[in-house]
Amino acid sequence: MPNKVAYLGPKGTYAERAAFALAKLENLEQAEFLPCSGIRSVIEHVATKHCEAAVVPIENSVEGGVTTTLDSLWSYSNIFIQRALVIPIRHALISCGDLKDISEVLSHPQALAQCSSWLSQNLPNALQLPTSSTSEAVRMVQGSKFRAAIGSRKASSGIKGLHNISYPINDLAGNRTRFILINNLDTASKTKPQEHVNIASIAFSLHKNTPGSLLKALNCIADLKLNMSRIESRPSKRELGEYIFFIDIELNKNHALINTRLKEALDPLCEHIVSFGSYPSTEIENE
Amino acid sequence: MPNKVAYLGPKGTYAERAAFALAKLENLEQAEFLPCSGIRSVIEHVATKHCEAAVVPIENSVEGGVTTTLDSLWSYSNIFIQRALVIPIRHALISCGDLKDISEVLSHPQALAQCSSWLSQNLPNALQLPTSSTSEAVRMVQGSKFRAAIGSRKASSGIKGLHNISYPINDLAGNRTRFILINNLDTASKTKPQEHVNIASIAFSLHKNTPGSLLKALNCIADLKLNMSRIESRPSKRELGEYIFFIDIELNKNHALINTRLKEALDPLCEHIVSFGSYPSTEIENE
Repeated sequence: MPNKVAYLGPKGTYAERAAFALAKLENLEQAEFLPCSGIRSVIEHVATKHCEAAVVPIENSVEGGVTTTLDSLWSYSNIFIQRALVIPIRHALISCGDLKDISEVLSHPQALAQCSSWLSQNLPNALQLPTSSTSEAVRMVQGSKFRAAIGSRKASSGIKGLHNISYPINDLAGNRTRFILINNLDTASKTKPQEHVNIASIAFSLHKNTPGSLLKALNCIADLKLNMSRIESRPSKRELGEYIFFIDIELNKNHALINTRLKEALDPLCEHIVSFGSYPSTEIENE
Repeated sequence: MPNKVAYLGPKGTYAERAAFALAKLENLEQAEFLPCSGIRSVIEHVATKHCEAAVVPIENSVEGGVTTTLDSLWSYSNIFIQRALVIPIRHALISCGDLKDISEVLSHPQALAQCSSWLSQNLPNALQLPTSSTSEAVRMVQGSKFRAAIGSRKASSGIKGLHNISYPINDLAGNRTRFILINNLDTASKTKPQEHVNIASIAFSLHKNTPGSLLKALNCIADLKLNMSRIESRPSKRELGEYIFFIDIELNKNHALINTRLKEALDPLCEHIVSFGSYPSTEIENE
């Protein structure tokens, strides 16, 4: 398989930073890094074995679960998670000009939303313009004294004329995103077992028309002496009221049989189960 | 309080249709209808008593829960749900021109996404341009033979030159959205009790660092002989891994004490509980 790591591009975004950090933790620094234009396309590169690994965001502390990631993981169902990494999201206001001259602020809609209090206090009259990514916004403000971008503090480094007017400007200090490094299930056996495994992830849909079956499933998990740390529901896309449940389980030690045991326990209740394996999740404290 | 119903505008969207239908069911047809530019602003009109009622989407069968609605209902916590209505979402391709001449397709990003297979088969080379709403897209294609909008079948009616090139064009036939009519809690006592109540909705955050507490909460609900039909988690926005849970419960009859009993049962486990009341949810089959 090509020694490539796909990630949600373009270059210079938080996702690229996560891709580099996750690749380093997995000794994949020498790989070719391939920025893709959408989350589904990133995951497809691994599902179809065009890339050895891929990095996508799965959860943000303010916005919640990344729905395209969850929906794609479910629909391909041949993906496992090798490692997770939580990185802090701290935005800077980037421009060639001064704060007093800024009349337009450009960024990804999520970044604009995450700085809305700061913007309403400091740039109440500036027009807010959505872009496809934070780094696209940084590209578009080059050379203008009236435009500013919201992006990573490091996005302006090395670009002539650009500087950070203010940092950090996000409204909630604890803004963090969990990224995952994923592989194709076929390569799972070739990957050496992880150390310090602390999460197991699984998704399932329940048999139709069985009241109380979600509760039964969660009690099955508890009966295995396991603690669920997260539950996220996504629509089946067939019927309103039919859901797929994504569940994370806390692990204290590497539990080789955990995914098999979970599948066995849940099988009678479920229409379909996808196991994403068990893996280490760590955190970067400083940007 | 002013006899006004706020809804997610602009005029001509699916949300407006839901607002008219819900208002009719609640004998509010004579109210003034106030289109707002964002979901949070719609809900704020009821939270601050500037409007008697408001209509917002809460769940779509393809996209899932409407996160801004859930987050706003939680943060205001003085809102109750008076009625829900599920309406079918069926998109039309609207233009002044013919299919063969279309080089640009405009719509809300969700509508573009919901028609992506149709577009890749029928207009593979057309540029897709995002707009803030489906009706904004319809406005922008007027007078052009090369542009088409994706919107409701009825969005083109009465607009000179516009016609529906194709209908329906959404990829999933069962695409439906649940809208809710909400009131301020202070007016709850003045509203006459609903008939045919079939859902109770509640949201809660759990005490920190108590493993298994979500499962305990769900077992409390089961102990009341109640069946949960939906669970949706949202981030607390304080810490990654801290959640607020939105739960819908199926009711077979009007159960006057249901919300009080639920609150009493869940109280020892929860940091905060918001009850949205119990209400009828019905469905429109045909557009």
